[in-house]
Amino acid sequence: MAVELYKDAHHSCVMFSDLVSDEAEAVQANQFLIVDHGQGVILDPGGNMTYNELNLTMRKYMAPQHLDYIIASHADPDIIASLDRWMTSTSAKLLISQLWARFAPHFCKVGKTEDRITAIPDEGGILKLGKSELWLLPAHFMHAEGNFQFYDPISKILFSGDLGVSMVSGQDAQQAITSLQPMPPGMEPFHRRYMVSNKILKLWVQMVRRLDIHMIVPQHGAPLVGEAIPQLLNWLDSLSCGIDLMGAPQYQLPVRSL
Amino acid sequence: MAVELYKDAHHSCVMFSDLVSDEAEAVQANQFLIVDHGQGVILDPGGNMTYNELNLTMRKYMAPQHLDYIIASHADPDIIASLDRWMTSTSAKLLISQLWARFAPHFCKVGKTEDRITAIPDEGGILKLGKSELWLLPAHFMHAEGNFQFYDPISKILFSGDLGVSMVSGQDAQQAITSLQPMPPGMEPFHRRYMVSNKILKLWVQMVRRLDIHMIVPQHGAPLVGEAIPQLLNWLDSLSCGIDLMGAPQYQLPVRSL
Repeated sequence: MAVELYKDAHHSCVMFSDLVSDEAEAVQANQFLIVDHGQGVILDPGGNMTYNELNLTMRKYMAPQHLDYIIASHADPDIIASLDRWMTSTSAKLLISQLWARFAPHFCKVGKTEDRITAIPDEGGILKLGKSELWLLPAHFMHAEGNFQFYDPISKILFSGDLGVSMVSGQDAQQAITSLQPMPPGMEPFHRRYMVSNKILKLWVQMVRRLDIHMIVPQHGAPLVGEAIPQLLNWLDSLSCGIDLMGAPQYQLPVRSL
Repeated sequence: MAVELYKDAHHSCVMFSDLVSDEAEAVQANQFLIVDHGQGVILDPGGNMTYNELNLTMRKYMAPQHLDYIIASHADPDIIASLDRWMTSTSAKLLISQLWARFAPHFCKVGKTEDRITAIPDEGGILKLGKSELWLLPAHFMHAEGNFQFYDPISKILFSGDLGVSMVSGQDAQQAITSLQPMPPGMEPFHRRYMVSNKILKLWVQMVRRLDIHMIVPQHGAPLVGEAIPQLLNWLDSLSCGIDLMGAPQYQLPVRSL
């Protein structure tokens, strides 16, 4: 089911949360469509399992062949393993970090991405979309080394990628979280192991505190609203994670048989 | 062309370095086949461009349908975007970090990986292969958060993934590097931006100094031999990289149009 996170006469932000079967061995993932005055972008279109349904369901909002952009927060399979199929069925350009611009073609047959990839510089940038814009915010090392988040100044939604992730079913991901007390399922262990360092979380918190945010929508799990937003920022600001928790015991020659 | 890094009557280590066309927009990448007493494993089989040629060329050493394992150092597209095709044409099991075991199925159609993925625990482990073994060494945050390297005690080759990478053509990747003076093309900028932190490099250097290494073979670029091996370890031991080089200037709201 497509969930309309925001909608007015000219601007829509739509979330797809249940395209990965709960019975699959694959982690649940959200895909997003933003349309403004007829121009459209898909954020993190997902892997091979989500392609058919996303391509069908988005037609309510725009024809896939008129899609202008696909933007990938980074290059993981749950983010854009469907790239080859989108490159075939649309004439959209792919925007992805300059770190992954030469890695993304490996998803595709030779030539499929030729002249269709824009490498996003580390400082991010502002993309014109219809009569609005989409801000591409640096989010490097959270978790990928080259990584972006997306802020929509009309809906005031921050599409936060792997920040604010919880591990729930595609159905449950449609219910916004209003408080982090108690912590949503999976949120704490995910951030502790996949986020790289508290140094980076602090830099990110400093940056996003300057934004007027109505909703934080991660790529796995449910959107965060209300009190959950300042609670997330405060929690991340002091969270030890990733390399903070690594030492010599984690880098030893293996002794056990697999 | 398949390059035999090591060969005796019962044990072969083979590198494929030129399966990604130099004209493609995709980064050059190496794939590896290890066969011992008829049992075989492919390390990092690569993206969609490498599948056909690798599947054909490996037949000189073993039939693809008898392949026992595919092991992925991490989940990037140049590492295993061809997974769906390998899952179809072989009955091999995939071994991958527990961090990516639920992400890898996104490369595939639903059900294709069912009961065929083994999640490697963070401490790594020892895999029996024919009458030999392959060591899976923890290499987390270099660059992926869940990441492994592979050591073959017979050939004494360390398959080092993204450590020791250089940026050269598939042809040039077949010539071993004997010294890091001068530094090979691309080696310094790659490690500075893609590796996460000197803290982690130091832990890795401590660990691998305990190994008897005849050759370090990265997933991009040429193998390192002789003096280049201690030179690499010494250089990485003191290299500032990744988050060491990040600060508030790198985490600012974007101002420029893309």
